[in-house]
Amino acid sequence: MKLTSFTDYALRLLMYVAVNDDRLVSIREVSEVFDISRNHLMKIVHELGKGGYLKTVRGKNGGFRLGMAAKDINLGRLVRYTEDDLNVVECFDESNPNCKIISQCMLAGVLQLALSSFFEVLDGHNLDDLIGGLCFPEYKQIKLEDKSV
Amino acid sequence: MKLTSFTDYALRLLMYVAVNDDRLVSIREVSEVFDISRNHLMKIVHELGKGGYLKTVRGKNGGFRLGMAAKDINLGRLVRYTEDDLNVVECFDESNPNCKIISQCMLAGVLQLALSSFFEVLDGHNLDDLIGGLCFPEYKQIKLEDKSV
Repeated sequence: MKLTSFTDYALRLLMYVAVNDDRLVSIREVSEVFDISRNHLMKIVHELGKGGYLKTVRGKNGGFRLGMAAKDINLGRLVRYTEDDLNVVECFDESNPNCKIISQCMLAGVLQLALSSFFEVLDGHNLDDLIGGLCFPEYKQIKLEDKSV
Repeated sequence: MKLTSFTDYALRLLMYVAVNDDRLVSIREVSEVFDISRNHLMKIVHELGKGGYLKTVRGKNGGFRLGMAAKDINLGRLVRYTEDDLNVVECFDESNPNCKIISQCMLAGVLQLALSSFFEVLDGHNLDDLIGGLCFPEYKQIKLEDKSV
């Protein structure tokens, strides 16, 4: 039972950007703070940009910031957006021909209820709820520490 | 957001065994009905046997049946048993060193609530709830149909 690493990293990235809301954040920076590959982050930033969650500024001193207020980023809507596959089991996918009992089976119904219940909790929270009291080490400090290792 | 195929197939296998509760069921049979590999099913039957969900009878005419009444097989407990990893995101795993904000982060708390809510729904259902009105084609009929193809 797992969310994709795409969702996991998207959530962490948005939390970091939300905390550093007085400036643009770079992919390099997030990559160093969370030890996530830049390639993976580029895809995530692109998707979050498409969804309006991030606004990117191109150029040498470019970067990205939140595309909307943290309190307006609902976690349920966000995770539905970042998860490309909400078929908890194979037979949620109606094009799947591998199950001969699909028409009478009550398993999908129960799991659908459980999934709805999972998202109901997320629907009740927004990004702003996650960052209260959260602080990251200053990015420059991290770089200095790295050099001293 | 996915349960493992192990859980998916374990649930289907148990539903099939529960419906055919007047006789022993074989791995070959389940493999043909659901088009799941025998190797995969052998591991599942072994694990479900260890957990008391199945009772196996060895020998030429052997097979397996439910190890307890279908109404006593709680879906929440079963899925917690069949899912080997309930770390919805990386940072649920306390030994994971990849996140620098783990001590202050409220993400894991919200996701844990959501996961609990998912399991609460499953906790309210048992295997017997899934099989009302469920019927599988007779196994012999399936074999005859296969021959005529």
